[in-house]
Amino acid sequence: MTGRKMFTPPVPTLCRDGDSVVILDQTALPHRTVRLRLSSMADVAHAIRTMQVRGAPLIGAAAAFGVALAMHEQHIAAMPSHAGDEALDAALEQLAATRPTAVNLQWALARMTVRLRPLPAAQRLAAAWAEAEAICAEDIATCAAIGRHGLGLLRSHTNRPVRVMTHCNAGWLATLGAGTALAPVYAAHAAGLAVHVIVSETRPRNQGLLTAWELRQAGVPHTLIADNAAGLLLARGEVDVVITGADRVAANGDTANKIGTYLKALAARAAGVPFYIAAPRSTLDFACADGGAIPIEERDGNEVRLLHGLDASGNMAALRLVPDDTPVGNPAFDVTPATLIDGIITEDGVFPPSRLRELAPPP
Amino acid sequence: MTGRKMFTPPVPTLCRDGDSVVILDQTALPHRTVRLRLSSMADVAHAIRTMQVRGAPLIGAAAAFGVALAMHEQHIAAMPSHAGDEALDAALEQLAATRPTAVNLQWALARMTVRLRPLPAAQRLAAAWAEAEAICAEDIATCAAIGRHGLGLLRSHTNRPVRVMTHCNAGWLATLGAGTALAPVYAAHAAGLAVHVIVSETRPRNQGLLTAWELRQAGVPHTLIADNAAGLLLARGEVDVVITGADRVAANGDTANKIGTYLKALAARAAGVPFYIAAPRSTLDFACADGGAIPIEERDGNEVRLLHGLDASGNMAALRLVPDDTPVGNPAFDVTPATLIDGIITEDGVFPPSRLRELAPPP
Repeated sequence: MTGRKMFTPPVPTLCRDGDSVVILDQTALPHRTVRLRLSSMADVAHAIRTMQVRGAPLIGAAAAFGVALAMHEQHIAAMPSHAGDEALDAALEQLAATRPTAVNLQWALARMTVRLRPLPAAQRLAAAWAEAEAICAEDIATCAAIGRHGLGLLRSHTNRPVRVMTHCNAGWLATLGAGTALAPVYAAHAAGLAVHVIVSETRPRNQGLLTAWELRQAGVPHTLIADNAAGLLLARGEVDVVITGADRVAANGDTANKIGTYLKALAARAAGVPFYIAAPRSTLDFACADGGAIPIEERDGNEVRLLHGLDASGNMAALRLVPDDTPVGNPAFDVTPATLIDGIITEDGVFPPSRLRELAPPP
Repeated sequence: MTGRKMFTPPVPTLCRDGDSVVILDQTALPHRTVRLRLSSMADVAHAIRTMQVRGAPLIGAAAAFGVALAMHEQHIAAMPSHAGDEALDAALEQLAATRPTAVNLQWALARMTVRLRPLPAAQRLAAAWAEAEAICAEDIATCAAIGRHGLGLLRSHTNRPVRVMTHCNAGWLATLGAGTALAPVYAAHAAGLAVHVIVSETRPRNQGLLTAWELRQAGVPHTLIADNAAGLLLARGEVDVVITGADRVAANGDTANKIGTYLKALAARAAGVPFYIAAPRSTLDFACADGGAIPIEERDGNEVRLLHGLDASGNMAALRLVPDDTPVGNPAFDVTPATLIDGIITEDGVFPPSRLRELAPPP
């Protein structure tokens, strides 16, 4: 494996640019490639909340930069003496409140706290930028390692192309590197192993369109389907393996991921198709005993009611699909029980849920 | 049960008006109430193919009227001598080709054949109108009977309101009467038994919006969800019973219904929630041994790529959700195996799949 070129995202998802951070606005994809400059902690919180930045690992990195920007705002306000615990605590609190389910957000904020709190106020700004950049660099390496371990799984299938079903977007758009669920796909593509990705639309936010877009940028063959079609394709024997990302994996292996993941896991099991979660160790939450302890984010019903796309003139436009007065439920995640998961692909290898505790940090 | 008023659809879905048929255009709902006049067999075939008329029982009735209109066209062309087997065969062939999965279409056409073929050409026109109207009248009675039998099932649940999950649209919009899957809901509502319907969006054609709309017209409480959310709600214990319609039930009870039904059946079984199919006997196909013999319609990928709704000015508009060059798969139905079905609610009672053969016509 050594010597193979590291996957480079065709478009950077997030990068520091001086005293600000530039992101790819994921709400404009797949129709427009729009870059946004985030110059304050509030900008970052807004970007996470509105899903301009999304994907558990990318949310974590963005939050780390949000802390750095909070330190920077204190600095330019010429209040270095106040850039102490008070400013840090306020930043951590506001960023932590943006999204409840993805644990990487909390993980990144906890890491920033551990790094910054012991330092004198004057040193926190530089340390915050450095730590956020370290999180990004590590994510790239983590994605590459997940890709290598997942490639081994894909090679074990005899169909060519290997037909991989995924859900939501857990590719390079969701990380700083090659992605989580799609890292094995990109590793296979780079290694000359033919793959075909079955991409589910992922209503209501349609992150499957992001996945189709990013696969196209990378030249990987794929087919988009409505979420409802996953069961039929699995039952018909048209899928070799299912791999999704995760927003939080509990200690027993129960996994919260984008709403609809659980239905695919059920259908995969019924069809005898292996179902894998790909996630960095930062997504494992050993403080959560099982899936019942994972908070499930309920998002605005307008995500179901309104859609964004291109109008007849090719301009970005919103369309009302559902009348305003129709009551809507919009849970953003579900929990796939560990019993339906064949393995969790991490940077340290592939672990069945029963062996996940080997990855727990020392008490 | 006797003496209760028959359910009357708030808007007629299909009715004869002299020498034509007037339908409610279901592609304009839930945004606009548009009535269309169909004056030829070709109009009917187009309406079925484009889903202006949809729902297995309603498709059957529409096809029967299509045959009547074909006879009428022969009649006004002053070619009664040609309104023989040739004209009949041509009409049957063209109507049968409109949609492959719903067996009611074939059933209605077969019934029209049996009724018309023995008659002299001069008598066929009147007989065709009469038979199509008889099919409609019977459908109304069938829906009412399904409602009565299903109401018994709903009464057996102790939660109030009884939380019923459904998929696609199998309500009054899909029939001439109270619907199939929703007939028990309307029966409960009329009987004062509190019900709450969980309606899944049903991508890609969003027939869930039709269901939400028709429940609103009838005053029945409901919540719309993305299809992906069904698994979470079932796993959380937020659903008491799942009832869907069917497009074709095989002899062993395997059931083809709108794509995504199978995923709900899997999740219902995993949660210990009963899963029922509601379907008239005309949807049972004893010539199909099992689900493997049911043809699955593959529809145009643009159904996934394009959406219709209201633009910012409140006008009906199309929106491109998916770039034109993204490969799309769009199977319209899936098959739920009989093992996941607790019962099939017919006009003759509720039958577990193992007892379905009792309803088979004598050989």
